[in-house]
Amino acid sequence: MERVDHLADERNKAEFNVDDMKIVWAGSRHAFDVSNRMSRLVANDPVFEKSKRAVMSRKELFKNTLRKSVHAWKLINELRLSDEEGLKLRSFMDQPGFLDLHWGMFVPAIKGQGTEEQQQKWLSLATKMQIIGCYAQTELGHGSNVQGLETTATFDPKTDQFIIHSPTQTSSKWWPGGLGKVSTHAVIYARLITNGKDHGVHGFIVQLRSLDDHSPLPGITVGDIGMKFGNGAYNSMDNGFLMFDHFRIPRDQMLMRLSKVTREGKYVASDVPRQLVYGTMVYVRQSIVSNASTALARAVCIATRYSAVRRQFGSHDGGIETQVIDYKTQQNRLFPLLASAYAFRFVGEWLKWLYTDVTKRLEASDFATLPEAHACTAGLKSMTTSATSDGIEECRKLCGGHGYLWCSGLPELFAVYVPACTYEGDNVVLQLQVARFLMKTVSQLGSGKAPSGTTAYMGRAKHLLQCSSGVRNARDWLNPGMVLEAFEARALRMAVTCANNLSKFENQEQGFSELLADLVEAATAHCQLIVVSKFIAKVEGDIEGKGVKKQLKNLCYIYALYLLHKHLGDFLSTNSVTPEQASLANQQLRSLYSQVRPNAVALVDAFDYTDQYLGSVLGRYDGNVYPKLFEEALKDPLNDSVIPDGYREYIRPLIKQRFRSAKL
Amino acid sequence: MERVDHLADERNKAEFNVDDMKIVWAGSRHAFDVSNRMSRLVANDPVFEKSKRAVMSRKELFKNTLRKSVHAWKLINELRLSDEEGLKLRSFMDQPGFLDLHWGMFVPAIKGQGTEEQQQKWLSLATKMQIIGCYAQTELGHGSNVQGLETTATFDPKTDQFIIHSPTQTSSKWWPGGLGKVSTHAVIYARLITNGKDHGVHGFIVQLRSLDDHSPLPGITVGDIGMKFGNGAYNSMDNGFLMFDHFRIPRDQMLMRLSKVTREGKYVASDVPRQLVYGTMVYVRQSIVSNASTALARAVCIATRYSAVRRQFGSHDGGIETQVIDYKTQQNRLFPLLASAYAFRFVGEWLKWLYTDVTKRLEASDFATLPEAHACTAGLKSMTTSATSDGIEECRKLCGGHGYLWCSGLPELFAVYVPACTYEGDNVVLQLQVARFLMKTVSQLGSGKAPSGTTAYMGRAKHLLQCSSGVRNARDWLNPGMVLEAFEARALRMAVTCANNLSKFENQEQGFSELLADLVEAATAHCQLIVVSKFIAKVEGDIEGKGVKKQLKNLCYIYALYLLHKHLGDFLSTNSVTPEQASLANQQLRSLYSQVRPNAVALVDAFDYTDQYLGSVLGRYDGNVYPKLFEEALKDPLNDSVIPDGYREYIRPLIKQRFRSAKL
Repeated sequence: MERVDHLADERNKAEFNVDDMKIVWAGSRHAFDVSNRMSRLVANDPVFEKSKRAVMSRKELFKNTLRKSVHAWKLINELRLSDEEGLKLRSFMDQPGFLDLHWGMFVPAIKGQGTEEQQQKWLSLATKMQIIGCYAQTELGHGSNVQGLETTATFDPKTDQFIIHSPTQTSSKWWPGGLGKVSTHAVIYARLITNGKDHGVHGFIVQLRSLDDHSPLPGITVGDIGMKFGNGAYNSMDNGFLMFDHFRIPRDQMLMRLSKVTREGKYVASDVPRQLVYGTMVYVRQSIVSNASTALARAVCIATRYSAVRRQFGSHDGGIETQVIDYKTQQNRLFPLLASAYAFRFVGEWLKWLYTDVTKRLEASDFATLPEAHACTAGLKSMTTSATSDGIEECRKLCGGHGYLWCSGLPELFAVYVPACTYEGDNVVLQLQVARFLMKTVSQLGSGKAPSGTTAYMGRAKHLLQCSSGVRNARDWLNPGMVLEAFEARALRMAVTCANNLSKFENQEQGFSELLADLVEAATAHCQLIVVSKFIAKVEGDIEGKGVKKQLKNLCYIYALYLLHKHLGDFLSTNSVTPEQASLANQQLRSLYSQVRPNAVALVDAFDYTDQYLGSVLGRYDGNVYPKLFEEALKDPLNDSVIPDGYREYIRPLIKQRFRSAKL
Repeated sequence: MERVDHLADERNKAEFNVDDMKIVWAGSRHAFDVSNRMSRLVANDPVFEKSKRAVMSRKELFKNTLRKSVHAWKLINELRLSDEEGLKLRSFMDQPGFLDLHWGMFVPAIKGQGTEEQQQKWLSLATKMQIIGCYAQTELGHGSNVQGLETTATFDPKTDQFIIHSPTQTSSKWWPGGLGKVSTHAVIYARLITNGKDHGVHGFIVQLRSLDDHSPLPGITVGDIGMKFGNGAYNSMDNGFLMFDHFRIPRDQMLMRLSKVTREGKYVASDVPRQLVYGTMVYVRQSIVSNASTALARAVCIATRYSAVRRQFGSHDGGIETQVIDYKTQQNRLFPLLASAYAFRFVGEWLKWLYTDVTKRLEASDFATLPEAHACTAGLKSMTTSATSDGIEECRKLCGGHGYLWCSGLPELFAVYVPACTYEGDNVVLQLQVARFLMKTVSQLGSGKAPSGTTAYMGRAKHLLQCSSGVRNARDWLNPGMVLEAFEARALRMAVTCANNLSKFENQEQGFSELLADLVEAATAHCQLIVVSKFIAKVEGDIEGKGVKKQLKNLCYIYALYLLHKHLGDFLSTNSVTPEQASLANQQLRSLYSQVRPNAVALVDAFDYTDQYLGSVLGRYDGNVYPKLFEEALKDPLNDSVIPDGYREYIRPLIKQRFRSAKL
């Protein structure tokens, strides 16, 4: 077979060593090796083939996911893969399925909330997959507000059991992945009631289906909630509903690490600190940030390669047209997303460190940094997932009409990614949590309690409230101190303005609810500062590899100056920069685009994605787009026959003017 | 059957007459009557049922579209519907199919570019649908740049024929709707070559398939290009590819109204002015703007009703929770979109007038207003379709997790709508056309040639360059003159800044390409001014109906002040407003949201959409969302059986720890 590389010229232009950049992107040589091996393992295994997902029926797609999931589990065992390798293998499988919830939610919930005894019993079953579990929290009428859940777990002292019940239709569990058709067990959340008293929402382990024949147990109504966004996407997953009709479970299936119910029905809190729960949230959300960079990088990789392949306009003499990537409008939309992918990668790396740090402190009963860590991960989850879902759609548009083809990979990526804006905390609700934390921090300024971690800059409020940017020429916008100060001034001034406006209200809660929109903007400004500052810290540190640091610096300042332009209203209205300085920033941005241009294709090669994982004809490594688009088209079921099904019944009678007599 | 209306309270709150608003939304009582009748005709006809589209295979969906299309055509004939009624009926059918291209592109192309003789021959066949036509312009490697098309039509004087040929794979026609499986004919575009000379791209009528058995004619390769974004959406349409292998057509099938080829092979331009072609573009694009308001209104209707039904948080005592629509964050995202839907409606109405005006002038050979009309429709097409596709996705997010369900109607609406950002001119390319026109207008200021129409404000450049906004309190932001001046100052100053920056380049084209991103922003500012000014003109004019005008004024100023906030960087950096004035605008905006709140549900009722057309469980008129979500879920094929297909092969061996021996 002829080997072509339509992008060889682009690759030759690169001014840095791609292999070195791959290590930086992956985080370490070890992480690169694991990713590289696992992605190739998946790519070379025909069971993981995924190009026909769009034309599979719901049932076929679901069954195909079962097949892939079980095959993945088999490989993990046969090849004795480590946890890290197994996780990577599953992520490269790239098809949502029950393994995600079993390993990502069910097992961690038992680990986090179960007593040692409970862990021993249930984890040994779960880790061998003798049972399959899911995580059933949200209800049909209750998503974000966990405290509003309606399902009840009433203790019956006569039988030493909890009676789990769904009192209304809106109390039906709704959405949990793996619940609809697969899971044998679930961790479910319900209001605990003992002696007529409501103790709020607690977790319980519940068996849903018979381990013999998989039929739902009496008292359990369970099923799939139906089709979701996209052709493939989450339609591979059996997101489910679940209703209980006075369903009984033994008392010891309440997850009792934090609080328990005694044989007599007494509710007793344990001395295990509740803050541990937040530790888990920090973990889950840092992994969501890491996934954001992965998803955005996929979209950017596709759009960048295709922008280098595609040519439009620019020829007035019938000669070769201009590569689309050479247009400033394209660069102006694409390169900030490329920079964002790297930015989210590095902030995700830092969050991993933060999680380790928080865990160590929690183990030593040091809860001081937890609120800040919690606000910071909530905010970054919100900010990076919103930017990523918008960014994927923007990349699709950057591919012109062909981005709308399923085989571009972008519709699938978008449909499968967008729920990240809603699950694990709606993005707007999360930003309000950040805002609450910021308001509290502002109110404590001057109280002697110095803000720490990502809010440390607020300790310099006096300076930041009165400083003015020293930027005098475009080059100054490559000065890390000047860039940071502009972002710090903007974030602090927005927070302080919100706090001042809040103080004008007699009722704080009413003020908060009146100013919600402003508070969200202040929280966003704070989160963007975090990402910018972590990116700057990264590029100011040691980075190995020929030319690598220079490229990352370019991306870092593209990211910062693009945000400055996008949120110019914030910067100008807080006087953090002047219109003239903003104009210099744009000038610098254009210069940075020109510097990134010859490196763009190599910068997306550094993600080390296989063509199989990318799943995009437009994003192929070799750029051999057009012949492959034809090949894909010919596979469509509509092309099975030259004369389409329906010709005799509809088309022929129409053009033969016999439609009145045709069977319609 | 019990009649419930969970939204009755909301409807009782409204401070205006909804029936009167329906007339204003529709444009006239007549237009309302037609829409109302046609939408009910479709809603009550079981053939047009569409709730199962998401679970249909590609072939089923395609056949279902044939059935609906032919049924629609049958109704149009049997009921002797007018053209206006037929168009409405087809739009309420709400499923892309070959009728759209036949009537929307094939017939108009012949009307616009065919000679009278050609029209007589082909239109009589086409209007009776004895032939089915499509419009084949774009090629695999050539979308936006029509002049880059590769297909050739070479005149052969020996046989008096054109030889149509696809010289490369990238020259394959690609994307035309209705081409893949249905059309018997096409208007195709190819480079005309006579006597070895390339005369550029011209249109030709080509028969593709046999009228006897529908098989492609010898020399024609045609098929479907495969799956596209979404479950249903455009997968109902046979977008196709088409290659010619020295395919011959008679000379008289070149569309010869503007230029012709004589029997001898001489290329002759006619005296019909070429500008007529632009008249057609104005028509097509004004209808796209009108469709934008329709689509955005659908999404807003769904999100508004569900935001009134849905409750989250706000109860600290286990009581009833707060309606989501009462949160300022929700209002801050939703109400500007509601206002945008109305804004686009009215600017669409005005564009309809503009098209009539341009047509009249063209008939009188007055081409003076054409460039301005062309730029204006290009810009508005771009701006309204971008805002609408973003707005639909925002509405989906505003519905929380359930917005991700296919039965929310929003994924389908998004997937079917987004191509509007690309077809009929990529949105960024179009804004650059606007920018070019603006630069030309600026360069002619002071030359004595007064700018007219939507650029008339540029004639007041002297004033607008030095004026400063007189806004002193929040109320001033309801003053039409002050709002307009702020938008005019911003647009003009951005255009003038671009022009000044351009003049610094020695090479104008190089400057233009360097400043593309700024030019797009200047064009956007100009287009937003147009929409704001037309909305203000509407609400300052006569409007009948109890309370109607007050509501529209509120929406008008929400639209303007929301744009001001969103693009604050523009307004501040051009000194069109001060930070203090911007803060007053936000204050006014919050007050307007409170005024719209009690009217929100009635304002979306005014769109008069049937539940069938909306196609959304969340957007149901009666608000009876939750029981219906269950009903929809139960229809999913996965719920056909309690034990899923795949249990024996995959799940059982897994939990029985026999996966090593299972067939995997």
